[in-house]
Amino acid sequence: MQRTRVHNFSISLDGFAAGEPQSFETPFGHAGQRLHQWMMATRFWSEQGSDGVDNAFAVRHSDGIGAEIMGANKFGPPGWADDPSWRGWWGENPPFHTPVYVLTQHERPPLEMEGGNVFHFLKASPAEALATAKQAAGELDVRIGGGATVVRDFLAAGLIDHLHLVVVPIVLGRGARLWYGLEEVQEGFDVESVGSPSGVTHLTFTRRDTAS
Amino acid sequence: MQRTRVHNFSISLDGFAAGEPQSFETPFGHAGQRLHQWMMATRFWSEQGSDGVDNAFAVRHSDGIGAEIMGANKFGPPGWADDPSWRGWWGENPPFHTPVYVLTQHERPPLEMEGGNVFHFLKASPAEALATAKQAAGELDVRIGGGATVVRDFLAAGLIDHLHLVVVPIVLGRGARLWYGLEEVQEGFDVESVGSPSGVTHLTFTRRDTAS
Repeated sequence: MQRTRVHNFSISLDGFAAGEPQSFETPFGHAGQRLHQWMMATRFWSEQGSDGVDNAFAVRHSDGIGAEIMGANKFGPPGWADDPSWRGWWGENPPFHTPVYVLTQHERPPLEMEGGNVFHFLKASPAEALATAKQAAGELDVRIGGGATVVRDFLAAGLIDHLHLVVVPIVLGRGARLWYGLEEVQEGFDVESVGSPSGVTHLTFTRRDTAS
Repeated sequence: MQRTRVHNFSISLDGFAAGEPQSFETPFGHAGQRLHQWMMATRFWSEQGSDGVDNAFAVRHSDGIGAEIMGANKFGPPGWADDPSWRGWWGENPPFHTPVYVLTQHERPPLEMEGGNVFHFLKASPAEALATAKQAAGELDVRIGGGATVVRDFLAAGLIDHLHLVVVPIVLGRGARLWYGLEEVQEGFDVESVGSPSGVTHLTFTRRDTAS
């Protein structure tokens, strides 16, 4: 059965997935790289990286994924929609290697890049975007790539089957908030938690009726 | 060296230490008992309880503590200060067995109860209250007993040496918020995290210059 999954989604103790202000120079605002250092230290990120619990979670990012849905704020800094030459953060061979659906108010023609990356720009509800992405993914799963608003919207709509959060032990105080409007969202999920020697906590939410 | 400690302070994933509304019937609002079920299932709470990682943390509550400071909202439901007969939630032999300093705008004479419990009602800043409590505690440590506002105020004032949080995998959406105004509070602390089979995550913050 096709599932809709979130992986390696990092938040602060107070639930922010990015600081502020977000800009070209500081994509995660005052959080800097602190939310993702745990991942950059894994073998998933570089061959010199660690191969323990953090890596075991990190590598699931691409495993069996046939399409990604991301928010406009992940594709570029504020204002990118007004710049026809903006092609994302990731160079000419982005790390997705699947169709990617960018949810935006500003539709534009698809952008085909190297390595099987094709960006589609979609003005659609979460359910509509997911139907499109599932079709593109064939038998494979769909990853919801963030940022916080998109993960929150898909959770609120009941569309997530598996959510992997990484709680980083910092308090950001302000930024892009995951939990807002998600009262009792844990219902229907099995939740597990494990601490890592790196200091982060991995939380998984697995929807009961889709657990294998 | 005397330390100021917080133990068994339970919060939801979104950082609430109580739901709402708080009342005599529902001291933790819509959270009910869900934030403290992990503790009620330990041997610390009852002889039939579990004796694993949750209990190992839970029993530290009273270990070496010579006084507690609590907020007005922990001592009673909204309005208790207008009721001269209110003597706390805990019956005639409360579980503190030390002097307890209740921070309140409404001072009243000390309340002496069984088992070494003496409640003092204090209109004071965190630093003033702590100085008083430390003197009463002798060589022992002082526990900051909550609620969220009191823990937050003492953290913001840099007065906490050891903080034990228990993150319960529920999303409350509203209530008494711990993290507000605590940007970068983790600085100066060593933070550890461990998941428990019960589903909760224990987080400890230990101030570096007081770690033994």
